[in-house]
Amino acid sequence: MPELRRDPIVGHWVIIAAERARRPNGRPKDRDPPPPGPCPFCPGNEDKTPPEVFASGRPAHGLPNGNGWRVRVVPNRFPALRIEGDLDRQAEGIYDRMNGLGAHEVIIETPDHARRLTDLADAELTEVLLACRARVLDLRNDVRFRYILLFKNHGPSAGATLDHAHSQLIALPVVPRQVLEEIQGARRHHELKERCIYCDIVGQERRDRSRLVYENDDFVVFAPWAPRSPFETWIVPKRHESSFEAEPGERLAWCAQALGTTLRRLDAALGDPAYNFIVHSNPLRDGPSPSYHWHVEVRPALTQVAGFEWGSGFHINPVPPEEAAAFLRRVAG
Amino acid sequence: MPELRRDPIVGHWVIIAAERARRPNGRPKDRDPPPPGPCPFCPGNEDKTPPEVFASGRPAHGLPNGNGWRVRVVPNRFPALRIEGDLDRQAEGIYDRMNGLGAHEVIIETPDHARRLTDLADAELTEVLLACRARVLDLRNDVRFRYILLFKNHGPSAGATLDHAHSQLIALPVVPRQVLEEIQGARRHHELKERCIYCDIVGQERRDRSRLVYENDDFVVFAPWAPRSPFETWIVPKRHESSFEAEPGERLAWCAQALGTTLRRLDAALGDPAYNFIVHSNPLRDGPSPSYHWHVEVRPALTQVAGFEWGSGFHINPVPPEEAAAFLRRVAG
Repeated sequence: MPELRRDPIVGHWVIIAAERARRPNGRPKDRDPPPPGPCPFCPGNEDKTPPEVFASGRPAHGLPNGNGWRVRVVPNRFPALRIEGDLDRQAEGIYDRMNGLGAHEVIIETPDHARRLTDLADAELTEVLLACRARVLDLRNDVRFRYILLFKNHGPSAGATLDHAHSQLIALPVVPRQVLEEIQGARRHHELKERCIYCDIVGQERRDRSRLVYENDDFVVFAPWAPRSPFETWIVPKRHESSFEAEPGERLAWCAQALGTTLRRLDAALGDPAYNFIVHSNPLRDGPSPSYHWHVEVRPALTQVAGFEWGSGFHINPVPPEEAAAFLRRVAG
Repeated sequence: MPELRRDPIVGHWVIIAAERARRPNGRPKDRDPPPPGPCPFCPGNEDKTPPEVFASGRPAHGLPNGNGWRVRVVPNRFPALRIEGDLDRQAEGIYDRMNGLGAHEVIIETPDHARRLTDLADAELTEVLLACRARVLDLRNDVRFRYILLFKNHGPSAGATLDHAHSQLIALPVVPRQVLEEIQGARRHHELKERCIYCDIVGQERRDRSRLVYENDDFVVFAPWAPRSPFETWIVPKRHESSFEAEPGERLAWCAQALGTTLRRLDAALGDPAYNFIVHSNPLRDGPSPSYHWHVEVRPALTQVAGFEWGSGFHINPVPPEEAAAFLRRVAG
């Protein structure tokens, strides 16, 4: 059973997942080593994954775990966390631990092995986001979970080891520290000004335009003021909303359009870079928040995290966001 | 002039150093691209670096920037921050910026191009730490600086691009967020218990022994309870002291012995891995602290930081610290 451990000084959580190191081919460096043989995410190989928890696009009488789907969600074969059991919180002297309880799922974005997320039409990408929303809405019924992280690793240097286009979600019994810090920072701003800081940022970026990359009816895409790495890009809903899963389908369609445009422009600007994106949303057990505002953060994996960044939380970025945004405004995508 | 920008939500600082991207061979991926021609850190090439700010080991009448040194400290040729000027703090709407003022220096650990830090005898490594201390004591006289980070990147996947053994320091006009969080966490513990949390950790690790790697008269080496990556190892003074630069030479000799032993064991266990280490010490303008305790954090660069870690501050570690420590206790070094 994996274990969740809390650092006693700063309070970060670590998943100690010894089983993951023992996977076939499982040196610590590998996260999801490509299993030998055919791609487990391709149609016809549905029995190579754990039974699906969601699928869309199958004809009305299609069987679960059969062919004919357009988006399919399955549990990760090498999950970082396990779905069964209790948290069993314990002290060990001054330290804190609990069982590594959670869910780890893979969203297979297309049946076609050769297509990347950036090759999908807006309607297809919308279907991926709708699948993500459906999984969040289902998993939030499990009261053991406090947070769900939706993210994508694309390319080996961003941590992906399977080629077939997919994103992931991890449901957690604790709220990650980095999200908590955003929530606390946004709350401080709201106490002072009675306004959402993300709404303020969206307002300033749309007026200023120097870091603006793109906008459509419902979403604005910009390079943040203090990007931790070159070409970091945020996608933020214009209308205040604290939770991703509260968005109606029409707005997720606009989100898909903004996300697809952003990733295609990064592709064009940087030549198919490895990248990560992550969805930051309100914790599952909190009500709608006037101060927190969900959003997507996209980071091309261009720079190496070295000792300085790792040990300080300080980042050195050689590309000013104004230059990155100007570049991303010009390219097609 | 590089610029320091503060994220308005969580408060992290970023150095926007556009000049560093424009170095010869300066794609964003490169941090310190090897300059063409002979190694600038080798004896005889002293004129290939900016004039030295410290050297030890030269015979009594040796000239600065001449041959004959054992440890030499020079300003970085491509500094992330600049030493001249004022901070000039400014608002830009809701955002905060200041000039990228600071010092960025390179500690050349040995004149011998072929030797790594792990090849140095304890006395030589002590001389490196004494050079670091001398630089910190000098730079802290500059009242513009609030913090000095000492760190080392060894190997390309840990961010190093020059082979010749060296570590680095960056003096900053702000205290890095990650250090602030340690200080705040330690202060909370002290308010509750009137004890230093690091002293408590040292006590528990020495009693428990399952995560203990090594100890000598003055320092204890262990795998932390919640390591963010496999084989993360901390080196902590047994006697409470908040600042690295307050340590007398005898204790730095014990520190060198513990650091050398740790790095040699990681070498033996993992086969010359890339690694980072970083010294966490009390901020320059604070008096001696009863709650904060300086220490060294060592991290072999074995895992990739992927979307999940980057966007959550949550880490997945496939190697339990008890297994890593047991392994490091057994190997020679």
